[in-house]
Amino acid sequence: MEKIRIGIVGYGNIGRGVEQAIARNDDMELKAVFTRRDPKTVSIKTEGAEVKHFDDMVSMKEDIDVMVLCGGSATDLPVMGPEVAKNFCTIDSFDTHAKIPEYFANVDAAAKAGNNVSIISVGWDPGMFSLNRLYAESILVQGSTYTFWGKGVSQGHSDAIRRIEGVKNGIQYTVPIEAAVEKVRTGSEPELTTRDKHLRECYVVPEEGADLKAIEEAIKTMPNYFDEYDTTVTFITEEELKKNHSKMPHGGFVIRSGETGTEGNKHVIEYSLKLDSNPEFTASVLICYARAAYRLSKAGESGAKSVFDIAPAMLSQKTPEELRKELL
Amino acid sequence: MEKIRIGIVGYGNIGRGVEQAIARNDDMELKAVFTRRDPKTVSIKTEGAEVKHFDDMVSMKEDIDVMVLCGGSATDLPVMGPEVAKNFCTIDSFDTHAKIPEYFANVDAAAKAGNNVSIISVGWDPGMFSLNRLYAESILVQGSTYTFWGKGVSQGHSDAIRRIEGVKNGIQYTVPIEAAVEKVRTGSEPELTTRDKHLRECYVVPEEGADLKAIEEAIKTMPNYFDEYDTTVTFITEEELKKNHSKMPHGGFVIRSGETGTEGNKHVIEYSLKLDSNPEFTASVLICYARAAYRLSKAGESGAKSVFDIAPAMLSQKTPEELRKELL
Repeated sequence: MEKIRIGIVGYGNIGRGVEQAIARNDDMELKAVFTRRDPKTVSIKTEGAEVKHFDDMVSMKEDIDVMVLCGGSATDLPVMGPEVAKNFCTIDSFDTHAKIPEYFANVDAAAKAGNNVSIISVGWDPGMFSLNRLYAESILVQGSTYTFWGKGVSQGHSDAIRRIEGVKNGIQYTVPIEAAVEKVRTGSEPELTTRDKHLRECYVVPEEGADLKAIEEAIKTMPNYFDEYDTTVTFITEEELKKNHSKMPHGGFVIRSGETGTEGNKHVIEYSLKLDSNPEFTASVLICYARAAYRLSKAGESGAKSVFDIAPAMLSQKTPEELRKELL
Repeated sequence: MEKIRIGIVGYGNIGRGVEQAIARNDDMELKAVFTRRDPKTVSIKTEGAEVKHFDDMVSMKEDIDVMVLCGGSATDLPVMGPEVAKNFCTIDSFDTHAKIPEYFANVDAAAKAGNNVSIISVGWDPGMFSLNRLYAESILVQGSTYTFWGKGVSQGHSDAIRRIEGVKNGIQYTVPIEAAVEKVRTGSEPELTTRDKHLRECYVVPEEGADLKAIEEAIKTMPNYFDEYDTTVTFITEEELKKNHSKMPHGGFVIRSGETGTEGNKHVIEYSLKLDSNPEFTASVLICYARAAYRLSKAGESGAKSVFDIAPAMLSQKTPEELRKELL
């Protein structure tokens, strides 16, 4: 069997997750990791794969079928996405919701110009959660959809804590409020405020001699990040932070309830994830969509796509016949 | 807006559910219900729609875009599916798992000959549950998938009870065993026997003077249906049966857990349904796949398909732009 040849652009948590996910998929192989650092300083796990500089990408145009873009959404992907899509099929996890239409248009133009397929915003949210919102609202046309996140680490909120004066280190967990989740599960379609749905747990390592009261106050009243939530602040040592908070668990729930017929029959559709490692799971989703991009490109398609445009069968190593026989 | 014109073939529980689902989708209209009974004896709810005999179907070839086939899988659909697919795009909920490959081949040949699109085995299982098995195993390549059904009425098991001597009426609920579901949710990938996963609750109305002990024994030892399960038998009156057991609730869970990376990180993906009305929910799924069949046919495709082959965006009334903006 000819393997699908993958390139990884960016070797952070997601990039390393993608490398591990490739090793778990028999029909794929990692050809190269691309980095903006000095390639000599980056050591990867895959035997036979190369580490190359970002600027040397095009030299491998004939050797790579799909590039998995593992840059950040704030500054990396808006530039990198369209740039790489000119020369390669791409997958990314662009997650700045408000900028998705603009990003899609830019990647679409580049991918079409290069005759490549680029699937954007792949992962679990955006990604699997988006899919479940779409399926559920297409079935239950009249109803309400709720998304809960967590318990899991929010990188943005953790960064915000670390910028506060007197804070040496810190981490923030987004926690769904169980009572709200339960209320939604009854199918009663409750109206929920931001405060009703999630709380925010902060674990903070203070600088020596810092004013703890002031730190707590600064966190709890921070606009956009914490002021609309019930927030707890727990001070811990750097050692405790390393020991108890170095994993990257996450997860959440998409729940839609709605009515059918004329006799008030209610239905509840729920999709949930419980993840030990957010980046490894995201990488696993990226990799099965890489398979879809490869197949669509071979079939002559081009342009930007999202998970909404990909027929599920495209994601599987199994043939359509096997899928119908074993999973339908 | 031009509406998608739907025909319903068979006017039982599912057919009536489809009629109600059409009323909840602004882009669709019911044109006709087809029945094998005398059309004069069938009264439907939709003003302006016709009731016609099954044999008059072809006369409406120019008036109907998609036929939703609401016959049974045992004897109706194997004949009706290929027959109708010659002249119309079709959707059905064929659910005899073992015969899906054969059924698919027959419908595919007919649909291709007639230049129509036919989506088979649509509903929640097969259907949404199948999709979730596929997505979950494509992401977590190494892992285990579990399907639990219920609490809900099994028509086949209820029929089996009613065939026993001394039984006047009866109903059977399939009940997932909570302890097993919880064990699966931990991600431990337990090995579960049939008896570990579900129990069967039977509510039986006996004939006057019937031997209750004998009925209970006959149910509990019935091969294929009950002997591999823990089964409870409760005797009730016909009145109680009507009062407490006339609804058709159902639901269930698809759970996959698996490992990623090299450090033993585990993940649990769960999809669950809690349905007040099995036929109304199934009908709602059928109707959004009817939209997909219509669109694919307009785009020039033909042949049999399953839910695996349908890009999610095809199901929604929203445009691709709206979907990316609102749901991604």
